[in-house]
Amino acid sequence: MTDGPVLDLHADLADLLQSLIDVPSESREEQALADAVERALSAYPHLVLTRVGHTIVARTDLGRAERVVIGGHLDTVPANHNLPSERRDVDGEDRVYGLGACDMKGGVAVALQLAATLAEPTRDVTWVFYEAEEIDSQFNGLRILAESHPDLLAGDFAVLMEPSNAVVEAGCQGTMRAEVRTTGTRSHSARSWMGHNAIHDAGDVLRRLAAYEPRQVEIDGLVYREGLNAVGISGGVAGNVIPDECVVAVNYRFAPTRSSAEAEAHVREVFAGYDVAVIDTVDGALPGLAHPAAAAFVAAVGGAPSPKFGWTDVARFTALGVPAVNFGPGDPSIAHSQGEHCPVGDLATVARGLRAWLTA
Amino acid sequence: MTDGPVLDLHADLADLLQSLIDVPSESREEQALADAVERALSAYPHLVLTRVGHTIVARTDLGRAERVVIGGHLDTVPANHNLPSERRDVDGEDRVYGLGACDMKGGVAVALQLAATLAEPTRDVTWVFYEAEEIDSQFNGLRILAESHPDLLAGDFAVLMEPSNAVVEAGCQGTMRAEVRTTGTRSHSARSWMGHNAIHDAGDVLRRLAAYEPRQVEIDGLVYREGLNAVGISGGVAGNVIPDECVVAVNYRFAPTRSSAEAEAHVREVFAGYDVAVIDTVDGALPGLAHPAAAAFVAAVGGAPSPKFGWTDVARFTALGVPAVNFGPGDPSIAHSQGEHCPVGDLATVARGLRAWLTA
Repeated sequence: MTDGPVLDLHADLADLLQSLIDVPSESREEQALADAVERALSAYPHLVLTRVGHTIVARTDLGRAERVVIGGHLDTVPANHNLPSERRDVDGEDRVYGLGACDMKGGVAVALQLAATLAEPTRDVTWVFYEAEEIDSQFNGLRILAESHPDLLAGDFAVLMEPSNAVVEAGCQGTMRAEVRTTGTRSHSARSWMGHNAIHDAGDVLRRLAAYEPRQVEIDGLVYREGLNAVGISGGVAGNVIPDECVVAVNYRFAPTRSSAEAEAHVREVFAGYDVAVIDTVDGALPGLAHPAAAAFVAAVGGAPSPKFGWTDVARFTALGVPAVNFGPGDPSIAHSQGEHCPVGDLATVARGLRAWLTA
Repeated sequence: MTDGPVLDLHADLADLLQSLIDVPSESREEQALADAVERALSAYPHLVLTRVGHTIVARTDLGRAERVVIGGHLDTVPANHNLPSERRDVDGEDRVYGLGACDMKGGVAVALQLAATLAEPTRDVTWVFYEAEEIDSQFNGLRILAESHPDLLAGDFAVLMEPSNAVVEAGCQGTMRAEVRTTGTRSHSARSWMGHNAIHDAGDVLRRLAAYEPRQVEIDGLVYREGLNAVGISGGVAGNVIPDECVVAVNYRFAPTRSSAEAEAHVREVFAGYDVAVIDTVDGALPGLAHPAAAAFVAAVGGAPSPKFGWTDVARFTALGVPAVNFGPGDPSIAHSQGEHCPVGDLATVARGLRAWLTA
């Protein structure tokens, strides 16, 4: 390990968050931050460290009856004139601004401090700080770890510290991308009757989308709202040519009771008669709130859980048979924005909730 | 004028066409060919030459009762591995292949030979060989001449020697480009109900296009078929974002009895309720076959005239009050293609027709 930035895991959480932001770590550029995390955690003898690529796993090994996994990613989207970090009071709220403040170095700050300071948690904890969540899943550190070292992710319950406004967001919906294609015949637009206009044909595809009524599915008392939407459309050859192809890119978000295969069948049924190509699909994750470990977690951190509509890495835990929820500081709706920030109050709320659960 | 290629205007028409093809003259690169044309025509004392840029005008001045304008452009689209020229027999047809063979050095070859050899036509002739027809109209030599020297284009009738399969194609339709825009509200596609999908809204725009019934307008015994078509569509921000804009590019081809202003009003009526932006419009040209000079032309060259559906520079003559038709060798549907060619038979047919008319 090379020399590099030093992280003080006992610092005030806002200061620790600023230190984390100020070690740039865009996806595929996480080494400096991963090195700093590994170096900082290696000072604590109650943690057993494992490193895979730029993913750091730190485990307690106290022989507790339960083991829980608490994870967060180290990488950020590309900088957007939002470095270095800044602490500012805005609208009466104490906030840390900067790249990754919300997504998700706030959660990482809390996790690192708890990992360092909870030497004897009442549940064994596997802390996971992983690389490359913001880019193509082939690089995702959690995915890689799940395949190469599934034992390191084994547990009774998992918490992913993605921003969730410091309330529990349970499960996540699945998501599918597909392309619906219409085809026609080119001709010069001055003689349009010689051709067949593929863009005109796409009108019916859009009509079906506009008329579509998405389901609302209740699971464990949470209502998951589905959605089927065009997210892109393209067609056209030149300003004087009748187009022979039009492609509607659709995105289907589906409740976690529906499998990818069922989702695909449903989308094909909606667009019956059209050429439908599925680009990719990922299963959602059931909220699993009925699981005793989940119930204990919700009771300890307090508040009413919400359903998670977006897809997150909690689904990877679900795929491993580990019930999982999202719980972290920051507002997910400002993730990836230039002005992303984390309320200092959220850091304290989330830290208090996790500490209560891990010391109960 | 610099030295350069020499054109033999008395050569066999196919040889002359090959000579013209072999002086490359992509738009904005016409100087060598314009120089060669000027040099060749300057040998004929029955012609009065004027040059404007790389546009050459050659006029007889015999005090005839009628003056006619016969024109063609010197430029071509960019080369596409189709130089130098080649003469080949294909499917039993003697053809000249090469860049511009069809569009429109075949017509230029015929015009140059007639200009050189008809010292005493029965109608005064203004021969026009102009630059930059294949690119933005700001560079169009005929447009520039119409503005700077309208007197040079004055006449009772005009023939534009664009490829028309050696039959008379009369008038031309107008054309308008417009954009029909829908707007919505972005949101994350996992929470689509927070946004409003602009692509879905475009479905109704496409439905109106699909249901549209274009007019067929009879003028001077010719039936002009209109068309209103989407020629492009675009929308979409990212695969996980509800799109807030969709733009449908439409092209309206309208019969020459309809003005640009009327065409715009019609398109706005079709898309009532939507944001419609007109990108550009050009008026068509009436066939003008009832004009005595046109009737004499049709009688002399023979065959039944067809309507011209595409827009051509004949409309520029119409705007100057000069009735005009398209009449040239070659099949317009292969213009701009790599394999464009000109049947040698068409060269003879067109030359014979024009010669008959100009010597009757």
